[in-house]
Amino acid sequence: MITWEKGGVCAPKGFSAGGIHCGVRKNKTKRDIALILADTVCDAAAVYTTNKVCGAPLTVTKRHLADGKAQAIVCNSGNANTCNADGEEKAVAMAELVGQATGIAATDVVVASTGVIGQILPIEPIRDGMSALVASVHADGSGEAAEAIMTTDTHKKEFAVSTEIGSAVITIGAIAKGSGMIHPNMATMLCFVTTDASIEAGLLDRALHAVVADTLNMVSVDGDTSTNDMLVILASGRAGNARITDEGADYDAFCAALKELLTAVSKNIAKDGEGATKLLECTVKGAPDTQTAKRVAKSVITSSLLKAAVFASDANWGRILCAIGYAEGDFDVGKTDVSIESKNGSVAVCADGAGVEFDEIYATNVLNADEVTVAVNLKSGDGTATAWGCDLTYDYVRINADYRT
Amino acid sequence: MITWEKGGVCAPKGFSAGGIHCGVRKNKTKRDIALILADTVCDAAAVYTTNKVCGAPLTVTKRHLADGKAQAIVCNSGNANTCNADGEEKAVAMAELVGQATGIAATDVVVASTGVIGQILPIEPIRDGMSALVASVHADGSGEAAEAIMTTDTHKKEFAVSTEIGSAVITIGAIAKGSGMIHPNMATMLCFVTTDASIEAGLLDRALHAVVADTLNMVSVDGDTSTNDMLVILASGRAGNARITDEGADYDAFCAALKELLTAVSKNIAKDGEGATKLLECTVKGAPDTQTAKRVAKSVITSSLLKAAVFASDANWGRILCAIGYAEGDFDVGKTDVSIESKNGSVAVCADGAGVEFDEIYATNVLNADEVTVAVNLKSGDGTATAWGCDLTYDYVRINADYRT
Repeated sequence: MITWEKGGVCAPKGFSAGGIHCGVRKNKTKRDIALILADTVCDAAAVYTTNKVCGAPLTVTKRHLADGKAQAIVCNSGNANTCNADGEEKAVAMAELVGQATGIAATDVVVASTGVIGQILPIEPIRDGMSALVASVHADGSGEAAEAIMTTDTHKKEFAVSTEIGSAVITIGAIAKGSGMIHPNMATMLCFVTTDASIEAGLLDRALHAVVADTLNMVSVDGDTSTNDMLVILASGRAGNARITDEGADYDAFCAALKELLTAVSKNIAKDGEGATKLLECTVKGAPDTQTAKRVAKSVITSSLLKAAVFASDANWGRILCAIGYAEGDFDVGKTDVSIESKNGSVAVCADGAGVEFDEIYATNVLNADEVTVAVNLKSGDGTATAWGCDLTYDYVRINADYRT
Repeated sequence: MITWEKGGVCAPKGFSAGGIHCGVRKNKTKRDIALILADTVCDAAAVYTTNKVCGAPLTVTKRHLADGKAQAIVCNSGNANTCNADGEEKAVAMAELVGQATGIAATDVVVASTGVIGQILPIEPIRDGMSALVASVHADGSGEAAEAIMTTDTHKKEFAVSTEIGSAVITIGAIAKGSGMIHPNMATMLCFVTTDASIEAGLLDRALHAVVADTLNMVSVDGDTSTNDMLVILASGRAGNARITDEGADYDAFCAALKELLTAVSKNIAKDGEGATKLLECTVKGAPDTQTAKRVAKSVITSSLLKAAVFASDANWGRILCAIGYAEGDFDVGKTDVSIESKNGSVAVCADGAGVEFDEIYATNVLNADEVTVAVNLKSGDGTATAWGCDLTYDYVRINADYRT
């Protein structure tokens, strides 16, 4: 049984966290640097953006995680430290500063940055604030860390779940940020996950990739794959479960809990997409295979035209069919059924690829909810998938027209 | 020498056109059906959308053009006649009504529709208005036809060019519509082209595909590939040139004129993208090959984040690098140079993949123009390409939130 817990990344045994304003951002009321510490060196795994422009912190983190071990995560917001000539040097310096202040080996520090691309990262505020940052770390500090990594997010994102593995209860916690430039492609937005499960680094990596493929990689806010996407998981092994060293019931239980957690993170990130007023979910069934189901689900939730119609609660289902039609894959759109669902009801809008009569006022009411699902049945096989996005609003334009100012 | 001409699709010898309000649309002040007539049966070629949801008129038109011949084009706006159970029957009826009223064989009539997807097309207003439509056709009626095919376009689109082939002057004219749901993928928006050049249908088809690949297929407004995209060209052969039956100087001259014409159509469609205030052009050079250059150019002009920044005249070049980085292709982003150009000046923002210092106020002034070019040099080969898009504005959201109401 999977149970929701409080405490975010501090919920699993062996982790503490904190976050302060050090001065990378001008706005002194906004925390801009986070630190997550483990009591001991952890097994670690990560997934990264597939963008060829890869933030300097990712380059350094990949190097530090080559041995599958890490003990700390440091992350600033307000500056992505990407496309800067001295980016790698600065990212290394961030890890070294954490190492000096904590006694942790610099090569066991994960480094992340998020914010504007192409502006030199000032290292001085990070250096000058490091002792305050380390002092801010406490056993219940997940929330401060979650706040410190936010950019255009409107609220902090932290979640935790627990489950039983054998006779032990293991916990997995996460903090995440992500609101714009979100269109993962075998990668993800910034997300830091901790667990006290004991699991060997190779299996941790396998579990992470399997779960991310169905969760964070199925989220799109605006079609822009970020340069700084990264998800890192640290496993302290403190839960007392028999160490997971191969696939089997324990591995499956761990994956199930991780999937529950990252599904919540995914939906939360999509719903908090820049300017969004609604979560837009698309479930696809009846696809010839899983990959086609995923492509169709993503195509629907990324259509700008549909996103604008959802904002207006307009059941413009032709745009759904259009988006299904330009998804890559081998299926007959003439068999497609579509319905729109929310807590306010359900309305069938298309059967066998053609419109069916429906009550427009009722359909508008279905769409007038904070979570809307487009349910697609291609009736061409057994493939299923779910993707999450959001509506397209005036505020998306406002936020992104103003971002640097 | 290529010369710009007036008269749109009526500029070439042998064509007349017209357009009226018949009642497919409720708004009586908006023409909603267009007719282009040729004096004789023409050589004909076309390109179509790659969307699997294919409008019924396209199915019928493909059948009618199988013999490479056509004599008339009929197109209504206000209803796409797509995803309707009786769509094909209605599209055939449109061709037959034109045939009965003009004496042209119904199988020589090209049928097109544009507007809302998934609403039954009422054939009654088209039947009742057919004699008035035919009566509206005159030798200078290109403008009325161009108006009749508009949907959210803010102005009609008609162009014509002439050039010399041997001792003959040939003319090519076009009308087009397209403002949203524009993201061609080996296809295009609605565009009807006429020419009095004498050219064999197979070569006409080859010329059309070659030119469209560098023009209309390089336009994106919103990433949504429409279900009803179609470009049709009719060649009357009335110019008196030696019939073009193989590649050579005459074929090249024809292609050059066609490219000039369709480049103008492409830029005009992009600039009139839904809600747009600016044309956003991206030129790429130094790519390893043409396909990579095209992918990079399209990636830049389709980035929602960049489009919003361009709307605000914000030189947020990190978003340009980000979009270059997620384009598919094998090149080193660390070599990339980027500058932003307009009639107001030119500013280098990135060299060798890293930021260069620039005056923000000057850069904002460069961006504060109705046509802005992002010039990218990948310094990794000889591939070049140009793509056209537009900025993302509040009005894009407003237009698409309100579209059906």
